[in-house]
Amino acid sequence: MSALLLSLGVSGIAAAQEPVDLDMVSRIRQEAFHRSQVMDHFSHLTETIGPRLSNSPQMAQANAWTRGQFTDWGLANVHDEAFDDFGRGWEFSSASVEMLGDRVQPLHALPKAWTPGTDGAVEGELVQVTIKKLADIDQYRGKLGGKILLLGEAREYKRPTEPDSHRHDATSLEGLQEFTIPKGTAKERDKRVKEYKERLELAKAVNTFFAEEGALAALSISGWDNGIIRVAGGGSRKAGEPVGIPELAMIAEHFNPLARALENKQTVKLRVNVAARFTDETDQPGYNTVAEIPGRGRKANEIVMLGAHMDSWHTGTGAADNAAGVAVMMEAMRILKAVGAKPDRTIRVALWSGEEQGLVGSQAYVAKHFAAYPEPTDPAQKALPGSLRDPTGPLQKHRDYDRFSAYFNMDNGSGRFRGIYAQENLAVTPIFQAWLAPFHDVGATTVATRNTGSTDHISFDRVGLPGFQFIQDRLDYFSNVHHSHLDTWDHVEPEDLKQAAAIVASFVYHAATREEKLPRKPVLENR
Amino acid sequence: MSALLLSLGVSGIAAAQEPVDLDMVSRIRQEAFHRSQVMDHFSHLTETIGPRLSNSPQMAQANAWTRGQFTDWGLANVHDEAFDDFGRGWEFSSASVEMLGDRVQPLHALPKAWTPGTDGAVEGELVQVTIKKLADIDQYRGKLGGKILLLGEAREYKRPTEPDSHRHDATSLEGLQEFTIPKGTAKERDKRVKEYKERLELAKAVNTFFAEEGALAALSISGWDNGIIRVAGGGSRKAGEPVGIPELAMIAEHFNPLARALENKQTVKLRVNVAARFTDETDQPGYNTVAEIPGRGRKANEIVMLGAHMDSWHTGTGAADNAAGVAVMMEAMRILKAVGAKPDRTIRVALWSGEEQGLVGSQAYVAKHFAAYPEPTDPAQKALPGSLRDPTGPLQKHRDYDRFSAYFNMDNGSGRFRGIYAQENLAVTPIFQAWLAPFHDVGATTVATRNTGSTDHISFDRVGLPGFQFIQDRLDYFSNVHHSHLDTWDHVEPEDLKQAAAIVASFVYHAATREEKLPRKPVLENR
Repeated sequence: MSALLLSLGVSGIAAAQEPVDLDMVSRIRQEAFHRSQVMDHFSHLTETIGPRLSNSPQMAQANAWTRGQFTDWGLANVHDEAFDDFGRGWEFSSASVEMLGDRVQPLHALPKAWTPGTDGAVEGELVQVTIKKLADIDQYRGKLGGKILLLGEAREYKRPTEPDSHRHDATSLEGLQEFTIPKGTAKERDKRVKEYKERLELAKAVNTFFAEEGALAALSISGWDNGIIRVAGGGSRKAGEPVGIPELAMIAEHFNPLARALENKQTVKLRVNVAARFTDETDQPGYNTVAEIPGRGRKANEIVMLGAHMDSWHTGTGAADNAAGVAVMMEAMRILKAVGAKPDRTIRVALWSGEEQGLVGSQAYVAKHFAAYPEPTDPAQKALPGSLRDPTGPLQKHRDYDRFSAYFNMDNGSGRFRGIYAQENLAVTPIFQAWLAPFHDVGATTVATRNTGSTDHISFDRVGLPGFQFIQDRLDYFSNVHHSHLDTWDHVEPEDLKQAAAIVASFVYHAATREEKLPRKPVLENR
Repeated sequence: MSALLLSLGVSGIAAAQEPVDLDMVSRIRQEAFHRSQVMDHFSHLTETIGPRLSNSPQMAQANAWTRGQFTDWGLANVHDEAFDDFGRGWEFSSASVEMLGDRVQPLHALPKAWTPGTDGAVEGELVQVTIKKLADIDQYRGKLGGKILLLGEAREYKRPTEPDSHRHDATSLEGLQEFTIPKGTAKERDKRVKEYKERLELAKAVNTFFAEEGALAALSISGWDNGIIRVAGGGSRKAGEPVGIPELAMIAEHFNPLARALENKQTVKLRVNVAARFTDETDQPGYNTVAEIPGRGRKANEIVMLGAHMDSWHTGTGAADNAAGVAVMMEAMRILKAVGAKPDRTIRVALWSGEEQGLVGSQAYVAKHFAAYPEPTDPAQKALPGSLRDPTGPLQKHRDYDRFSAYFNMDNGSGRFRGIYAQENLAVTPIFQAWLAPFHDVGATTVATRNTGSTDHISFDRVGLPGFQFIQDRLDYFSNVHHSHLDTWDHVEPEDLKQAAAIVASFVYHAATREEKLPRKPVLENR
């Protein structure tokens, strides 16, 4: 199955004699395309529940609602699974910034998650503050009390040269067939570790400094232009850590004029009002929601997983990131029940929390159920994210490590599936080619050998378990919606989600019924 | 000069032996490119004064400030010139909409100009109201008291297929050479008149109805997607006319979920708070700001004009629409003074008001100084805009009608000049080709015979006076900024404004010094 053969196939690797149950695929397609409920799941998550910041009350609602749906569909072992000590919940209900003086004008800004509210409207003079390293703090000491801080400088407008929205074509899909030899070195990794530590140290120092000074609030520029508020977290979710002062991200079109006014020595006075609160006094566990279709027979204790992160950032409704993925994974489970699938292996769905804070939920789950590298004893090492730690010794495996077949994830926006990344696992490529064949007619054709990163399949991949993500049309994920206040219902295409659900259901079904578990690639023991 | 000759020139019409003063062009370019002040004018208008709704206090500030600048530069006859009875001024200082209930969420919306404020926060249940014709009103009678109205239905997201920003290339400029034979008929004009009257009647009836019902506020969907608030006026600027209720335009990404919630029979409660006010009790005149460089000798009573509208909509800072045009026209006048231009004809700049309400300021100015068709006596005809009225008799000309040479306008956003529209005046094309030649190296090459419409040069064109606009790069004028809250400083390119100012100064200089006034096209006496 893993023999490399020259072929005319897309990836250069011949399709194997991998069995595909076309009768089952037909049934899955019928259910997915003609009796779809994927938009019901998606709508409930985005427009009834809304944004789902990890450990927020809305995330808890989403855990409860998805448990209810899974139970209604007759799934087994429906439960929330806690992971330790994630931190505190946070929510905001309103935010306003107004320019005062001769020209009163509302300015568009929204708070960073895990920063405090203002406790009513505050008014103060705006001062510009640029801190790039610890030593930059000194010049501002004793000067920021009662002020509102403009963090950083104006950013020049970047005129877009490409359409906001992008779908793959034959050329761009062909481009994905190329594998880029990594150029990373140990030295570069050391640099990344150093930069990470410095960034963390600086953020804590700045949070402490601003609060000690008694500054009223801080404004930073949104990550994107065109009136889009792109913003993630600030402050700290951990009880006892400095949360700084109320901080908001402002649209570039309103931030830049403030920066120019200060540059021109004009006095600017603002009113800021943020209603935001930490919902807990102490650190709380996070919760992943898990459910199963049990396998039958001798392979019932083997596991095929599918999942997506249910947590989101807080200013949109977490639609493309990632109610889309959750709705598709839910729908795949519903479809499998609806078509009466009787898998040999157990199919387990997991809706993760803490993804946006560094794959926290899925990493804890994998460590508990499958495998983990030993925890470092050095506190400095402990403070680093898994991917930046020094090796701590060989992988420590649980019983289910060897019973695990594969994990399928969705978290590249809401765009249509155009294939799958094999994550350098060459042995799976002919299998995936066979499984994709019945979906060529809906645009999913490509198996790329390359890795794709940055979401929950990496928690599996890191310990040598097969974890995959699909190739998706980008749409306007990286121009309008990713981590922005426009990550909402309307930017998603219902047909794309129906297509994705059918493919996930079929992949999971075949993974759960094929003779062997999916092949694995060698573990990089030095990680 | 107007002889048609076969040539290899861009427009098919040979360049005439039109004299061009290249020494003066060099001096204009030096001043425009190397000692530019255009961004100072532009910055003051947009970021010190801000938006300039006709008859608002900020428009009055702009009148005063531009008069001051013109006086400082030594221009003559600097004054504001009133036009009758424009209406009342209006301004807003803040606007917020919040979703209440289980999920408190701020929603992005800004008020329509000339609609009332809420006089503090109001709270009410949201109801959907769709009124497309008078008869639609009845079904809502007695049902809207204390409610907040969602006007119309959800709009499907339109995925952009082209880049937000566009500059001309050889192909698109070549395309402008084509003249489209008009297909309008008298019947179509009758239809337009009928639709205009119906629209006006419906708007008044709806304003009256909503107010009588005691509805608290109304929300309509922004004209564009992607979080952009594109909004103009509502209510009425005329004292005594029904102004309706507070009305706001909401971003599509927040409006659509409300529409879907109501469709799903969910109860939605909102809080709306708009601080807005009419600044006058009674109708006031509007004011254009006018200034001159007097001509010398026997042609001193002949006139060349340049201008741009200074009024803007209220949610951005009226940057591309049209501080850009005003800054360029101001800069052209400054350049001409700086280079010591001694024109034969008088050069007169006019910064119009009331453009956004239908070229009101420029039309009144042209009627007073140059020519007008007789005012209709029928009140129904009087209520129509000039372009839709029945013919009322021959043009009534003032003394200066025959002394007028040409008017040059800028109001197609802030993009670089790529040529000029000859407005079907074939006799000017060889002249313009000659005048453009020294600006080919900065991208201005094209003379198009076609008309361009919808701004103040039309007030001249309509009475048979040569009035022109330049061909401009579109940039993101029609994707992001036109009449939107993103019409701000950052979307404008300083280099483009410098180029435009040089070309306007040179065109105006040559028009004011050439032997003859510019040729005219025949007046369409039936208009």
